[in-house]
Amino acid sequence: MNITIVGLGVIGGSFAMAFKEAGFEDVYAVDLNKESIQKAKNMGIIKDGSDNAKQFLEIADLVIICIYPRIIKDFMMENRNNFKDGAIVTDVAGIKGTLIKQLDDIIPDNIDFIFGHPMAGRENKGIDHATAECYKGANYLLIDTERNDDDNVLLLQAIIYKLGFKRIIRISSGFHDQIIAFTSHLPHVMAVSLINSDVEARNTEIYMGGSYRDATRVADINEDLWTELFLGNKENLLEVIDDFMAEMGRFREDLAKGDRVALNKRLKRATKRRRRLNK
Amino acid sequence: MNITIVGLGVIGGSFAMAFKEAGFEDVYAVDLNKESIQKAKNMGIIKDGSDNAKQFLEIADLVIICIYPRIIKDFMMENRNNFKDGAIVTDVAGIKGTLIKQLDDIIPDNIDFIFGHPMAGRENKGIDHATAECYKGANYLLIDTERNDDDNVLLLQAIIYKLGFKRIIRISSGFHDQIIAFTSHLPHVMAVSLINSDVEARNTEIYMGGSYRDATRVADINEDLWTELFLGNKENLLEVIDDFMAEMGRFREDLAKGDRVALNKRLKRATKRRRRLNK
Repeated sequence: MNITIVGLGVIGGSFAMAFKEAGFEDVYAVDLNKESIQKAKNMGIIKDGSDNAKQFLEIADLVIICIYPRIIKDFMMENRNNFKDGAIVTDVAGIKGTLIKQLDDIIPDNIDFIFGHPMAGRENKGIDHATAECYKGANYLLIDTERNDDDNVLLLQAIIYKLGFKRIIRISSGFHDQIIAFTSHLPHVMAVSLINSDVEARNTEIYMGGSYRDATRVADINEDLWTELFLGNKENLLEVIDDFMAEMGRFREDLAKGDRVALNKRLKRATKRRRRLNK
Repeated sequence: MNITIVGLGVIGGSFAMAFKEAGFEDVYAVDLNKESIQKAKNMGIIKDGSDNAKQFLEIADLVIICIYPRIIKDFMMENRNNFKDGAIVTDVAGIKGTLIKQLDDIIPDNIDFIFGHPMAGRENKGIDHATAECYKGANYLLIDTERNDDDNVLLLQAIIYKLGFKRIIRISSGFHDQIIAFTSHLPHVMAVSLINSDVEARNTEIYMGGSYRDATRVADINEDLWTELFLGNKENLLEVIDDFMAEMGRFREDLAKGDRVALNKRLKRATKRRRRLNK
């Protein structure tokens, strides 16, 4: 099976590493940055690669598109005649509704495009920050559309499990964008807002413990990608921001009133819910 | 040097372990829970211990008080005649202003009480969750008062460094409570509010990635301790909650307007600030 990764950034590079660890040998890459291709070849995580997509799409049984969501449409337009007949194509974009609509008329009939979203990322961009580790034990969301062939979906799932992912959930694009607004976009907005609400020029580092470190980890963020994700999921994100701020507002009121019993209840409830999550 | 730890919970237990690792041998403990004492003896992290404070306070050159802040006053009242002459006494409480005022008339003249706050914690309570690891590389805040003897402060600092802490900052109690509201109390309120704003009965775990996991880690919280900390630092905490919510409100407005440039700027600024912090 020939696999071609499109975009050798932190995500594409991590896929290449994970494929290697899982024993896949025929892995190729397409990237406009020749240096990334060369690095990946030197690391032995791809067999070959090029800035010319055609050459490695034509031979690929599986294509994983790991480029910014906003350029996927153009990529598919340019390469609609370059795919191998029957190829499975998948992506890793963090928003699905708009993307799937954009691609609806573009996806050629001779391929099976199964939309996907690995729930694991890294703060930094570029292949230098790639690691197969972040996929171990992570969740993977797959978006079924009516077009998809069941056997292809099963095959893709088997490959995903081989890469170390723990759980694959098949959901609709609408539900994907709604739940991702809560589990991914909102925590990023919180981290960004927390660190931006800090007093200017204070050396906060020397006074912090683990809670601040964790709460701001994802504030080191790829601004172009995430601006795009936030705006592409605006309505869902506004809703969960409002829910969160309303909940925090209620906490604030209990605190202002000095309502020990109510605060205690909120903390107990949070503990109970947190313990249901995997650490 | 005899060291007595008062309160063998997760913090006191972690201190006992850190002392052992650092080569201190004469470490004793006081705890009303005889089972915790027995466990610590079995683990070899204390030499001896008792539910009777007097016996091990009388011999202690250094006393570390690791009980809930609200019971420190009573403990000091009951034991004001039980300390060894010249003993250094310190605490680990997460709020300082009220506590220092409470103890002002109570601290006996024959001891030197230096207030302290190790910036490292654990979600769970009890000695079973203790670990010396959480102190490695962590910050330690010391609150100087006019009463303290400089040599004693230096001695305590030397011991703290031996336990693995990376940095000790000496600050006033007022500044302590203000900065801790931001770096510790606020992230806890955010984590609790995030998880409590989740839709009821949704199995969110299967859709989450690292950002939600990190953002909610400290939502598994000791409700009695933290209700006390929040209420004991109410004014500072209300202020940083308001600052944070105002910042998040501005983010929300930019998002609602679809202001790509403004969002991008916010993310860039956050990234810059986050990179100044130690990972």
